[in-house]
Amino acid sequence: MTKIAVLGAGIMATALTWPFTDNGNEVALVGTHLDRDIIDSIQKTRIHPNLELKVPDAVTAYQLEDAKEAFEGAEIVMSGVNSFGVDWAGKQLAGLLTPGQKVLAITKGMQADEDGNLIILPNVLMSHVSEELRNSCTWSAIVGPSIAGELAVRHDTCVIFAGADQASLDYLADHYRTDYYHIWTSTDLLGCEIGAATKNMYAFGAGFGQGILDKEGKTNDKYVRFNYSAALFAQGATEMVQWMELLGADRDTTYGLAGVGDMYVTSMGGRNVKAGRYTGAGIPFSEVRDVHLKGVTLEGVAAIRVVGAAVERMTERGVLKQEDFPLLRHMYDVTVRDVPLDIPWKAFFGGQK
Amino acid sequence: MTKIAVLGAGIMATALTWPFTDNGNEVALVGTHLDRDIIDSIQKTRIHPNLELKVPDAVTAYQLEDAKEAFEGAEIVMSGVNSFGVDWAGKQLAGLLTPGQKVLAITKGMQADEDGNLIILPNVLMSHVSEELRNSCTWSAIVGPSIAGELAVRHDTCVIFAGADQASLDYLADHYRTDYYHIWTSTDLLGCEIGAATKNMYAFGAGFGQGILDKEGKTNDKYVRFNYSAALFAQGATEMVQWMELLGADRDTTYGLAGVGDMYVTSMGGRNVKAGRYTGAGIPFSEVRDVHLKGVTLEGVAAIRVVGAAVERMTERGVLKQEDFPLLRHMYDVTVRDVPLDIPWKAFFGGQK
Repeated sequence: MTKIAVLGAGIMATALTWPFTDNGNEVALVGTHLDRDIIDSIQKTRIHPNLELKVPDAVTAYQLEDAKEAFEGAEIVMSGVNSFGVDWAGKQLAGLLTPGQKVLAITKGMQADEDGNLIILPNVLMSHVSEELRNSCTWSAIVGPSIAGELAVRHDTCVIFAGADQASLDYLADHYRTDYYHIWTSTDLLGCEIGAATKNMYAFGAGFGQGILDKEGKTNDKYVRFNYSAALFAQGATEMVQWMELLGADRDTTYGLAGVGDMYVTSMGGRNVKAGRYTGAGIPFSEVRDVHLKGVTLEGVAAIRVVGAAVERMTERGVLKQEDFPLLRHMYDVTVRDVPLDIPWKAFFGGQK
Repeated sequence: MTKIAVLGAGIMATALTWPFTDNGNEVALVGTHLDRDIIDSIQKTRIHPNLELKVPDAVTAYQLEDAKEAFEGAEIVMSGVNSFGVDWAGKQLAGLLTPGQKVLAITKGMQADEDGNLIILPNVLMSHVSEELRNSCTWSAIVGPSIAGELAVRHDTCVIFAGADQASLDYLADHYRTDYYHIWTSTDLLGCEIGAATKNMYAFGAGFGQGILDKEGKTNDKYVRFNYSAALFAQGATEMVQWMELLGADRDTTYGLAGVGDMYVTSMGGRNVKAGRYTGAGIPFSEVRDVHLKGVTLEGVAAIRVVGAAVERMTERGVLKQEDFPLLRHMYDVTVRDVPLDIPWKAFFGGQK
């Protein structure tokens, strides 16, 4: 029996306790300061309020102040916070990790420095940990198309465990693999993380088509706008390949679970797609953010803001040309500058000749 | 004003008359022997009965016996039949084409010879035309995510005009480009056709997840099976790349409109997805075909039968390994041998290590 300590009790971190405990392992699930009610609910009723499911018996829930106790004896440590909490989580791990632990991260997104250099989140996470402790641990991540609730009800889910250390990947995969949770491993951590971050950005566009129909009073029309969404999907995949090349990852990672697979599932729905739908309907993004989706976490839009700003820095530095990443640039203008949606079709796919 | 003669009055061939006539051109729309009622309806009421739309004024509809008259003075000729009619259409064109015409094909699929060598449909089409006539014409094709009805109501649609002759592609694109019909050109005709044919096969799998939910009584459940569908999509994209490599096309064609873009739109619905849904629900495919979808044209399943058989021939000849194309092989077993659906997850993505 292996113990994992999970920092963050959101739906994805919690859903992952199903395959892990199905394999006879135990989980210490530690809530962040934002998860207080979730932990309270699990401690009292065993129900995760957002998943609306009873968590597995082998899960013990802890409030944050009991984290030290929760982490004791854990072979594996998971960072289960979202992209807004990754620096916070890194600082927590700096005080909680012990040498030799295997760290597994599930946060999707990127950060950028002032020059527009992009940094994947596992690197942000480990940057807060002392070099000695960092080097004594291994750092891996889970990517791929995985809606939390589906996993928690044991619906078939295929993912990639990615990291630099193959032995750790094999160890972790062995602990998680079940007849419904299918795992591959990859040492292209960079490419997997690029896929995870960029699919979130491009999924924002997956809502535009329905929003346009709403605006036109054609919400339930016979002829919808799948052609439109498919074209944005193809341009998203094209830009994802360019991200892989620009940042030095394996471009073939785009073809698989971490690339178009994850982009597909994220395009099927969720908060980013909803934000895109409002935007497609012609509502200025500032109003979408401040009124229609007030208080809602939009990781895809957050990634657009980070990466879009980085694209402008890289263009100033001559690393990128003005015609690179036309879809991302437009989504940046829409979400940051309240520019009305007007897809730059002619600039897509290398530009119409 | 340029004239096009279109052989076949199905929904896609007819939808394409909108952008063409919006540019001030004229269309002679010639029905096949199966389109008699469609032509009759257009001649009497201007309504295409399957699109449920009035066709543009600059379209003149002809029954097949008037094809000679219809083809007179046409600079462009379109083969608008489906994959089952491509040999028939080639034989018709042999008697109707005149030297110098630009042929544009929209049929998606592949044929195979006895050794399992796959042949793209524009090549099948032209094989029926005398060498001299064939060489005096140019042969191009339209591929990409394009649901006919959406195009016919002028919803944004992005496609590729593909062929060997760039001048013809530019000429054709100039005649079709509008503010809603966005066209790129590609000389990778082979890759574009592989994408068009294989996306139809993999879209069959897009129905499985919903079918499984139906079988489990979870049709309207909170937690669906998008993870499942996304994994099949990723494996479909992975196999599409392998098709490109095997047949000598540009593998990057997979990233764009002719690859994942078209696979996306085809996965959103239609007859193949419906057939996949019945199959996912546990109904033997022979019953799906003979009872639930009796008489319904299933081009994707037809492509699975052709290409799946070719894969077995190529494996016998040592061109392919047994572990290549696991998703296609399983869909072949399901549709041809009535094997129950049981996704070979472990064989996906190069095999779980």
